Order: sequence, then structure tokens, then C-alpha cells
Amino acid sequence: MRLALDAMGGDHAPKEVVLGAMKAIQTYKDINITLVGDEAKIKEYLTNNERISIIHTEEVILGTDEPVRAVRRKKNSSMVLAAQQVADGNADGCISAGNTGALMAAGLFVVGRIDGIERPALAPTLPTIGGEGFLLLDVGANVDAKPEHLLQNAIMGSIYCEKVRGVAKPRVGLLNIGTEEKKGNDLAKQAFDLLQNADINFIGNIEARDLLDGVCDVAVTDGFTGNMVLKTIEGTALSVFKMLKTALYSSLRTKLAAAVLKPDLMELKTKMDYSEYGGAGLFGLKAPVIKAHGSSDANSIFNAIRQAREMVEKEVTGTIKSAVEKETV
Amino acid sequence: MRLALDAMGGDHAPKEVVLGAMKAIQTYKDINITLVGDEAKIKEYLTNNERISIIHTEEVILGTDEPVRAVRRKKNSSMVLAAQQVADGNADGCISAGNTGALMAAGLFVVGRIDGIERPALAPTLPTIGGEGFLLLDVGANVDAKPEHLLQNAIMGSIYCEKVRGVAKPRVGLLNIGTEEKKGNDLAKQAFDLLQNADINFIGNIEARDLLDGVCDVAVTDGFTGNMVLKTIEGTALSVFKMLKTALYSSLRTKLAAAVLKPDLMELKTKMDYSEYGGAGLFGLKAPVIKAHGSSDANSIFNAIRQAREMVEKEVTGTIKSAVEKETV
Repeated sequence: MRLALDAMGGDHAPKEVVLGAMKAIQTYKDINITLVGDEAKIKEYLTNNERISIIHTEEVILGTDEPVRAVRRKKNSSMVLAAQQVADGNADGCISAGNTGALMAAGLFVVGRIDGIERPALAPTLPTIGGEGFLLLDVGANVDAKPEHLLQNAIMGSIYCEKVRGVAKPRVGLLNIGTEEKKGNDLAKQAFDLLQNADINFIGNIEARDLLDGVCDVAVTDGFTGNMVLKTIEGTALSVFKMLKTALYSSLRTKLAAAVLKPDLMELKTKMDYSEYGGAGLFGLKAPVIKAHGSSDANSIFNAIRQAREMVEKEVTGTIKSAVEKETV
Repeated sequence: MRLALDAMGGDHAPKEVVLGAMKAIQTYKDINITLVGDEAKIKEYLTNNERISIIHTEEVILGTDEPVRAVRRKKNSSMVLAAQQVADGNADGCISAGNTGALMAAGLFVVGRIDGIERPALAPTLPTIGGEGFLLLDVGANVDAKPEHLLQNAIMGSIYCEKVRGVAKPRVGLLNIGTEEKKGNDLAKQAFDLLQNADINFIGNIEARDLLDGVCDVAVTDGFTGNMVLKTIEGTALSVFKMLKTALYSSLRTKLAAAVLKPDLMELKTKMDYSEYGGAGLFGLKAPVIKAHGSSDANSIFNAIRQAREMVEKEVTGTIKSAVEKETV
């Protein structure tokens, strides 16, 4: 299997991307990696050449670039070339920690949709108190979703969760303003009816306040709402930690106690760090495309590669294709 | 001024409701309170009769009741009778800690909308790290909102924030998936154009992750999204505190340090407790209607009464009426 890696994407590229690739090559003997980016810079961090190839380019899509325009105009950018490797059949999947919107556009325009999937969905796995995590989709690929899109999100998420995360009969919940059946806006009400009749383990409406308690394995929603929920979780956790830090360093007494607790608090923070669960999958494309977090370090990149590898190995794309064909017959 | 209080609403009614009323009567010499509910039970907690009157009823709307049906059928319930006091001109505003949906229905059907306001909005004030708080609306009164509703939310929120919370030129932000101008779903894009031309201090799009940092004074969104954001903040904060508690009680070493930090951690938790900021206002009605949190204690009820009193005193309803008339001319 061969995976294409955008070596120039993310806040710590190319260093952490290359180091992550090195770790993956050592861990998984069945993968080949194509690093796309500035060859000289990549080589600074390359510790061995085994199963590694490089495609040199100096063009890069920036975080500030307008996504669709960037993908259309920067055809030689590291991100677009990595996606092109997949489109040309030279790679089985690709990974980037760069501009999220641009990667969604590259996935759509370069890699292409699975026939029958109307809109791809961006799906990160988020932490839960118990540590098992849950998949949230969509978090922004499709901000004006229709009920049918939510049905497809549910099917894709369920397949991913079963195949890659090893969850038997993943519990699929519909994010809503209450757990009762008739709750919600028009979109949620119509999606509820579709989900109820789908070939998934649909557990009904779920509330955002129960997500981190592990109320479901797959939380389904539209891209606008999902993006809000994702960023609210991030912002709230970060704010609580900030306030905690302020409280802990407010006096000598608290500082001493805080020093004792430091390892435990660090562990808590790690537990809330969802890069441990891999990147966000862009589901519904003809091959796995993974968005690693912009601030990814080598370990996050490694996790994203592992995730892409599992998606290829477990044939997630093919399974989604069959399921969608069955659903729309 | 007279305020009507649903004495039977909330998890700790009537005790905490009556105690909250007692505190308010002592604090504010310019208010009269009508307690609506079971007279015998109310009297158990009544410490004085000064400026207090009671309307006796045994009917109660339960938390599990279907809201609209409950308001239509339980015409003698404490909640509906409290709203009726406002409709009849016997009270200037009303407060309940009971069934949120039912109070929204009672507000709409019994108290009634201000002419020109298409949909009322439910608006709690949420905590920020700095302690100043921000108003979020709508959190669920109007789950299928149109751009015009978001404009009205912005105007109502801005007026409330200026009049009651004393913020000069409140910064009004539109909740969106990015801060750039052209971001978002159709609703957000259209609302952006309306907000830009409104007579408010519109600061543009804001992201959910920046809310607790105090990025704005008023965050505007539709009822579905707002409800998600509200419950995600609640759920995430609660989850982090749960994980913190587990970490702090994991060993003798951490327990000792935790004991030292206890007052600081309690203070932190209080800071995140938004009942300190009063209840959620139901804006757009002919008189102030306040939803106190279901788990309200006497202090939360007191804060909700204080809030209703300020809304009456500062003529929030009249100001909203004039502003809406001006906007729609």
C-alpha cells in the first residue's frame, strides 16, 4: 500500500510531518510513503530512505489562502499533488495537516466523490470521559445539508467506526435539541425518519451535553452545527484549563499543591487531546483522505497515517460504496 | 412594580422559589410579588407577608409534559396563571423555573408577542473567563430561524445588554464557522448582510471557540445552533470537572493536594455557574418573562427576580418595540 503525504501542510511542517512518516515506516512494514514538498527541506529530517519516495515541489497552499481558488490555481502545490497521486492511482490514500477547506476542495475536485454520495463529510473522533471516543460528522464540509446527506453521514460513520475503530454495531445518534422523537428543526425531524429506517444501529436523538459522556459512537449532524459543537468543545475545555491554571498559580499555597498534581493534570489534558485519535477523515471520497490537525506533531501525523492505512486495509471506501448503492436502490 | 412568580416550577419548588422571593422582597423595596401555587405549601416557607400575595392553585405543569398541550389544557397551572397575571395587567413580568418549552408557549400564547417581532428568543447570559459574561440568543425558542429573526435577535440582545447589563455599545457577533465575511450556511450569510446594516455595534462573524474568552457581548444565532452551543458548553465544562475530580481523588498524594486546592476549585466551579447571571430572558414578548434554571436555588431565583425587575425598570420591552418599529419602517 502507498500513502501520499503533504509534507508542507501544518504549523510544524515539514519537520514533524517527516518525523511522523519515519515513525510510520518503522512501525508498519506494509506501507510505502510518498512525501510531497520541498525535497531539500524534507531531506533535513529524513533518517532513512526505506519505502520513502519524494515528489519535489516548491508551491504551497497557505492557511490564509481561499480554499477553492487555491486548489484550482496552485496545481503544483504539495497538497494538490498529493491528492493527484491518489487520483492517478499511484497512492491509496493521502494525508495533510494543511488548510482544511483546501483539503476538502482537493478531495472533491481532485480525488472525487464516490458515485451516489452527494456530499462528503469531515469526521474527527473526539474524546470521551471513558476514553473510547466518538465520531462526529459532519463538522464543516457541508454546511447546508439535506436530510439525505445526514443519512449518508450516518452510514459512512457507522462503517468507519465498525471497520477502523472495531466497534460492533456502532450506536448512531442524531444531534438534536432534545431526546424525544418529534424534537428539532425541520432538518433534524426529516433526518430522524430516514435514520430510523436505515440499516444502522440508530439510537435516536442525542443531546450535545451528553457527547463527552459517551452517549453514542457516531454523532450525526449537518456541517454548520457540527462545526459549532466541535469548536465549542475545544473552546470550553481550553477555557476551563486556562481558569484552572490561573487558580493554581494564584498563591504560594496553591502553587505547591499544583506542583504535586502536575503529572495528573497533564494526563487529563492529554486525555482531552483528540489528535491521539488520528485526524479527521473526509468520508465519501474515492479513497481515504485524512486531515491531520494543523498543530500536528510527529505523533499526530503518525496517528493520521495509521488511520489512513487502516481505512485502506479494511476497505472502508468500498464498503461505503456498496452500502450507498444498497440504500439508494 | 409587581412580579408574578410560578412558585411550583423547578426541581426545588416551592421551597427555594419562596426563599428567593423573600430575599428579593427584603432587598428591593419597590417590588410586590405574587406567588402562584399551592398556598399551604408556599406558606411553609413564607417568613413574612410584606408585599407578598398568593394565588392558590393545585394544578402544575410537569417537566415531562408536552409544552404546547400543557399550556393549552392546564389553564389553572401555576405557570399559566402567573403568565395570565401579566396578560391581565396585574403584573409587570413573570418568572418560572419550570418546563422551558411550556414557559415559551405560555409567553407566546398568554403574554403575547410585541407587534413586529416574528419570533421570541430565549436568551441566557453565559460565563466568560473574565467574568463579564455574554448573552447568547436564541437557544431554542425558534429552531427554524430566518435571517430576519436573527436581525431581531441582535437588536433585542443589544438593547438588553445595554439597558440591564450596563454595557455601552454592546459588541454583537454572529456565530459562524469562521470569522471571514463570506463564511457559513445560507442563513448565516444572509443574516450577516442584515446585521451589517442594522443600528447596532456589529463586530462580524465570531467562532464558538472564542465565546468564553469574551469575544462579544451578544452572540446571535438560530435556536437550533444556540441550543447545541449552550448544551455543549454545559456538557464539556461538566465533563472536564468530572475528569478533574477523578484525577484528584486517584491517590493519597493527589487527595492531599486536592484538599489544599478545594476552595479554589469550588470558586472556579462557581465562576462557570451561569445561574449567577440570572435566568434566561424570553425576549420579544409584551412583558419580561424569565426562565430560571430548573435546578435553581433561592439565590438563582433571587437573581431571576432582580433581572425581571431591571427589565421592567429600564423599559426593555418598550425600547425593543420602538427599535423594531424603526427597523421595519
